[in-house]
Amino acid sequence: MTSPQLLIVGSIGLDTIETPRATMERILGGAAVFASCAARYFASPAVVGVVGDDFPPEHEARLRDQGVDLTCVEKKPGKTFFWHGRYEDDMNNRVTLDTQLGVFGEFTPRIDPPYDRITTVFLANIHPQLQLDVLDAMRGNPLTAADSMNLWIRTTPDLLNQVIQRVGIFFVNDEEARMLTRRQTIRSAADALLSMGPRLVVIKRGDAGAALFTRESEFFVPAVPLRQVVDPTGAGDTFAGGMMGYLARTGNHSFPAMKQAAVIGTVMASFCVEDFSLNRLAHIEKRAIEERIQQIRDLCGFDTIEL
Amino acid sequence: MTSPQLLIVGSIGLDTIETPRATMERILGGAAVFASCAARYFASPAVVGVVGDDFPPEHEARLRDQGVDLTCVEKKPGKTFFWHGRYEDDMNNRVTLDTQLGVFGEFTPRIDPPYDRITTVFLANIHPQLQLDVLDAMRGNPLTAADSMNLWIRTTPDLLNQVIQRVGIFFVNDEEARMLTRRQTIRSAADALLSMGPRLVVIKRGDAGAALFTRESEFFVPAVPLRQVVDPTGAGDTFAGGMMGYLARTGNHSFPAMKQAAVIGTVMASFCVEDFSLNRLAHIEKRAIEERIQQIRDLCGFDTIEL
Repeated sequence: MTSPQLLIVGSIGLDTIETPRATMERILGGAAVFASCAARYFASPAVVGVVGDDFPPEHEARLRDQGVDLTCVEKKPGKTFFWHGRYEDDMNNRVTLDTQLGVFGEFTPRIDPPYDRITTVFLANIHPQLQLDVLDAMRGNPLTAADSMNLWIRTTPDLLNQVIQRVGIFFVNDEEARMLTRRQTIRSAADALLSMGPRLVVIKRGDAGAALFTRESEFFVPAVPLRQVVDPTGAGDTFAGGMMGYLARTGNHSFPAMKQAAVIGTVMASFCVEDFSLNRLAHIEKRAIEERIQQIRDLCGFDTIEL
Repeated sequence: MTSPQLLIVGSIGLDTIETPRATMERILGGAAVFASCAARYFASPAVVGVVGDDFPPEHEARLRDQGVDLTCVEKKPGKTFFWHGRYEDDMNNRVTLDTQLGVFGEFTPRIDPPYDRITTVFLANIHPQLQLDVLDAMRGNPLTAADSMNLWIRTTPDLLNQVIQRVGIFFVNDEEARMLTRRQTIRSAADALLSMGPRLVVIKRGDAGAALFTRESEFFVPAVPLRQVVDPTGAGDTFAGGMMGYLARTGNHSFPAMKQAAVIGTVMASFCVEDFSLNRLAHIEKRAIEERIQQIRDLCGFDTIEL
């Protein structure tokens, strides 16, 4: 097996998902699952996480088939993290019907050598204390990125602030960015976040795309305009995973490379939402990725304007 | 005076606007006001509308100073259209506190020659029956565009459908597009609207930008990332007005021209929201427009990606 290039910390879970067209029960999900399966097209991912003894062997096999290194995934007596959600008609609003932390409730990440020397680290959305534990465990000077959610903004703002201060890249959706910073526009919210420490802030806007901000630069990538979305679950994690996978592969952390990485993330997310769980994300042809990169490039191009 | 190239039908009003930072009372507003003052940088606009006898002469003078032809604006005994709204902290949500139609309530558009032969027509958001009346009044075969709002989707869907069937360009925000078509994604909502008649559907997404769809093509333009928004009122009308003004000037209705026009509209909207009423929109330097066009072009550019 290739030695891992990207360490991803986050949930591995079972999701029951209701959409206007279908209900799927206990399918493979979790932030680390989507992120690693998007990243693996570009770099070898290793996941740090935990599953219960109810975690189906076929899910484990599926992740291994995808080339995901599960050495740092513990199996503990108890239940695997479970999430039950329902999407409204337009797929842009979702309601959480049930969350059961299970073994994830007492999870402590453990990162043995040589995994502590991986040079790219993505802290998917988990308790910020666990994100800090992982940062403490890492040797060398990895490129680090963190995602979060409104729950931690409300309940553990101080810990979350510490995470933001210590990572190189911070992922956040537009609403959370405004909530965190009390700023009004996403550009000013990004400024406030950048002043805390990260050198890149990535604002996720769902089906409207994503915006990247450094102190001096900005980039916008639109979402691929799809005719049908089957299940948006995991789109944000897939976006971040694809982006971090591309950065892990190139080792180039310049803003032009970040932009390319964000386009890759956008493309991977567009495949993710075309089916439930990993059903589409697990087998994407290189040519299909290239076509969607071109689609995004074409989407924003316009001729010279003479005034 | 230059003979008018763009006919704009819509409200001329007085707005009382509350934002988290300030309250402005009875300032000049209305869809036709914003649209015409954005369009005038590119083509000579004539407005069709009505004001009451309380309409301040200085507002009328201001519009004339902007080069807006007011020949088709009637002055009637009674009150000018009045809107009172409040914006929430993030400026993306607004609450209507009061709407008084005044003389706008019994308005019938009257378009005498030579105004009935103007070759570009923008039907801003007014009652769809009035939009149909204007379409009936026009001679020749003008390029026509219409905007609408959720009120008409709910209350007069049949009339609105007739408008959509008859115009060349239909402006709609993303939520309304989904509401109108019961489709889930903006691409499929656009498909449904295109099948009704227009050859271009423009989906407005506020501070996330705008998307253009024909049956075969698509284009996305992000909003200019501003550090501060003073008042979002009129941004959508300014966007449409700038776009239609550019199309009126070029007379080129190809998709590449529509894309350029949408960039122009986006730039004009970015100025509009930087101050109340026409305070910024009324005096924009050509160079400032050019700089923001370049900013939008740079915003979405990325280097070739090798997989």
